Amino acid sequence: MAAADLSVLTATEVAAKIADSAVSSEEVTAACLDRIAATEEAVGAFAHLDPDQALAQARECDTWRRSGRPIGPLHGVPIAVKDIIDTADYPTECGSKFLSGRRPRADATVVSRLRAAGAVIVGKTVTTEFAYFHPGKTRNPRDLERTPGGSSSGSAAAVAAGMVPATIGTQTNGSIIRPAAFCGVFAMKPSHGLVSRTGVLPLSRSLDHVGPFARSVADIALMLDVMAGYDAEDLDTRPVAARNFRQIAAEEFGLAPRFAFVKTPVWNKADADAREAFEGLAEELGEDCFVYDLPERYASAWDAQRAIMAVEMAHNLGKLADEGGDKISGKFCDLVAEGRQVSATRYLAALAEARSLRGSLEELFQQECTAILTPAAPGVAPEGLASTGNPVFSSLWSLTGLPAVTLPLLAGDNGMPIGVQIVGAVGDDARLLRTANWLVERLRD
Amino acid sequence: MAAADLSVLTATEVAAKIADSAVSSEEVTAACLDRIAATEEAVGAFAHLDPDQALAQARECDTWRRSGRPIGPLHGVPIAVKDIIDTADYPTECGSKFLSGRRPRADATVVSRLRAAGAVIVGKTVTTEFAYFHPGKTRNPRDLERTPGGSSSGSAAAVAAGMVPATIGTQTNGSIIRPAAFCGVFAMKPSHGLVSRTGVLPLSRSLDHVGPFARSVADIALMLDVMAGYDAEDLDTRPVAARNFRQIAAEEFGLAPRFAFVKTPVWNKADADAREAFEGLAEELGEDCFVYDLPERYASAWDAQRAIMAVEMAHNLGKLADEGGDKISGKFCDLVAEGRQVSATRYLAALAEARSLRGSLEELFQQECTAILTPAAPGVAPEGLASTGNPVFSSLWSLTGLPAVTLPLLAGDNGMPIGVQIVGAVGDDARLLRTANWLVERLRD
Repeated sequence: MAAADLSVLTATEVAAKIADSAVSSEEVTAACLDRIAATEEAVGAFAHLDPDQALAQARECDTWRRSGRPIGPLHGVPIAVKDIIDTADYPTECGSKFLSGRRPRADATVVSRLRAAGAVIVGKTVTTEFAYFHPGKTRNPRDLERTPGGSSSGSAAAVAAGMVPATIGTQTNGSIIRPAAFCGVFAMKPSHGLVSRTGVLPLSRSLDHVGPFARSVADIALMLDVMAGYDAEDLDTRPVAARNFRQIAAEEFGLAPRFAFVKTPVWNKADADAREAFEGLAEELGEDCFVYDLPERYASAWDAQRAIMAVEMAHNLGKLADEGGDKISGKFCDLVAEGRQVSATRYLAALAEARSLRGSLEELFQQECTAILTPAAPGVAPEGLASTGNPVFSSLWSLTGLPAVTLPLLAGDNGMPIGVQIVGAVGDDARLLRTANWLVERLRD
Repeated sequence: MAAADLSVLTATEVAAKIADSAVSSEEVTAACLDRIAATEEAVGAFAHLDPDQALAQARECDTWRRSGRPIGPLHGVPIAVKDIIDTADYPTECGSKFLSGRRPRADATVVSRLRAAGAVIVGKTVTTEFAYFHPGKTRNPRDLERTPGGSSSGSAAAVAAGMVPATIGTQTNGSIIRPAAFCGVFAMKPSHGLVSRTGVLPLSRSLDHVGPFARSVADIALMLDVMAGYDAEDLDTRPVAARNFRQIAAEEFGLAPRFAFVKTPVWNKADADAREAFEGLAEELGEDCFVYDLPERYASAWDAQRAIMAVEMAHNLGKLADEGGDKISGKFCDLVAEGRQVSATRYLAALAEARSLRGSLEELFQQECTAILTPAAPGVAPEGLASTGNPVFSSLWSLTGLPAVTLPLLAGDNGMPIGVQIVGAVGDDARLLRTANWLVERLRD
């Protein structure tokens, strides 16, 4: 299999070819490594990569498969993991010089689940420092002079550059949806509590989410089937019956889904061509889409998200800021200082606001729409690498814990991708993926 | 049935007599009302009481029973409910002049469960203002010049005075265990999250507990069988398989339980005769009991409990303090002001400390002991009604969420009761009741 072929195959296709013995995991992994070798210098998606270690895992997968034993849904598929997610075989340095050389003794729960499903963990992808704003080395594969977005910069760029079919990343504000949109790939921030965060650098228990990046909606569903599940150690996960995301996502709709086009109170932060692209999209959807103006009280959600994030990051990571000296960025120290200024009652009020807004959105889904349609970011990836761009179009969904998917369906005037974000009710992740499929099909017609 | 007889019957005995048609619920309830009529003026246990309404419920129970339909475990048994717990048929004023006349539209979940089990809700018992320190009118039935303790003052006094066989109350710091100890009755603060708080005035989600007062360990188990259970609206309850508290509590031990006598860092707050009584008890238990000194780091638990309580009460009830003017006590306003001074990171650190201490106590139960033995209060009920006494011997168990039972097994030099508190592992409430039974039996020999 040539590296060029591999770069367009989805994880679903790769898994099927391996299962059918059309290709070995070693061949696929070697093709990935070839592609990485060809593009990594320009893109810089990886924080840690050991080709021998990746190939050894792939060969183990092949031995297992040849034994005739049952295989998991990701058997032999190369996956890369954001470097704030613990892995026992690779360092996990969280984008921080201060944690240089840190090597966890155990895999994060979500990594264990990927391995149990047969995935080959090829390496660790670049994150901004502690998944906050100070950028890493990664460039946007669609235009190397532009930011890939962050904080899951490497996870988005690796998929966009054809290095691996799928990756995982994390979002506390806009760190999955924004880089996926900037790099033009599919990605999902699942419902809060759907995917375990055990073994993932804790920024903010109330806001942290783990989610997949991939090349199709089917791939996102496949990844979620493996990643989702109860973990007694993550107190926000729940022991509920498993869903089959792939199956539900692939089902036909009886009635067409109905979209609420939500501009949000930060619509004025969107670029002119993004605004135009979304107005055009809404028009194209016609009667399947209506404009919904969020009530006034949503305007304070952004401050609430900020307060919760600053407080919980100061609580979880303040010690690193205190002890790290010049190995910690000024931006990060400022955030910790900001978090320490917030009163406990302000913090609890922000959490209560989040619950209340979530409840009010719940009613919107029950009564008015199948999904919310909204920008994934203010526009295309901005030029330059000093900033990873603005998470403002993700904050509300991170705050309320609603599942969000970004689809690379639009483009700016310069041809750079613009992500279409669709958002569903909490817990309704499977149907949101079905809606995503419908939208992709509808716009393909 | 004479009121005098009733005052010594347990809820278990009353329920059995009603089930056997030896007595009707109306007769039992009338006897309770007679006893209340005779003692209420002196004791002042009730905030709201309507004899007609109580008798009407009792007659409904009797009609139901005579129809031959199945009956619940508390069928026809008169129960009184602390006045911070919502009831649809009685006002719920939370011991506050500011909430005078407040009448909820629905029962609290725990009240619904009691009614579903057949209980007759005879009335509402006195609470201190918002279940904090400003006392109500209640006096200690064992000595009317002494405090009944608080904040569940009326619930403890009503059982002690023989007004009703059982009541329910709440604890955020020491509000179940202390009044029960002062009044010489049995009571339990169950594991955090075992009994729903939906419809109970929220003081502090992290610390609030609902629990029963009664005349025997068997009664406590009976009440818990009815009260415990998952409630989707109380996020701290969990969907777990139901236990049969009565059955487990009544089982024999294979090996004798082993008690860790924990003096706690506040041992110097205990009165001389309480200290002497506990040293004597430990000696009497001999090899079934060993002294366990809590590690140094437990010393900060009291500050942590205080910080969490002040913050969460300021969050939940601060508006009442702001708007209530002179209808709110100075003590309560001071607490709200204190809570508003606490930083969010201090608050989160206190919550983390609570989890950590709970984990370390877990190890003690796994490796060393069946239960902790410790005072329920610094001594007998203090003289005077201006203060409800000191919750200091409950704070650690409220902070860590461990189940605690107080047993009226000791007495001070003046004959007033001293409560023996036993504490178990989180979730191990049923076995803790079995240990309580063992201890009661052992000391009866």
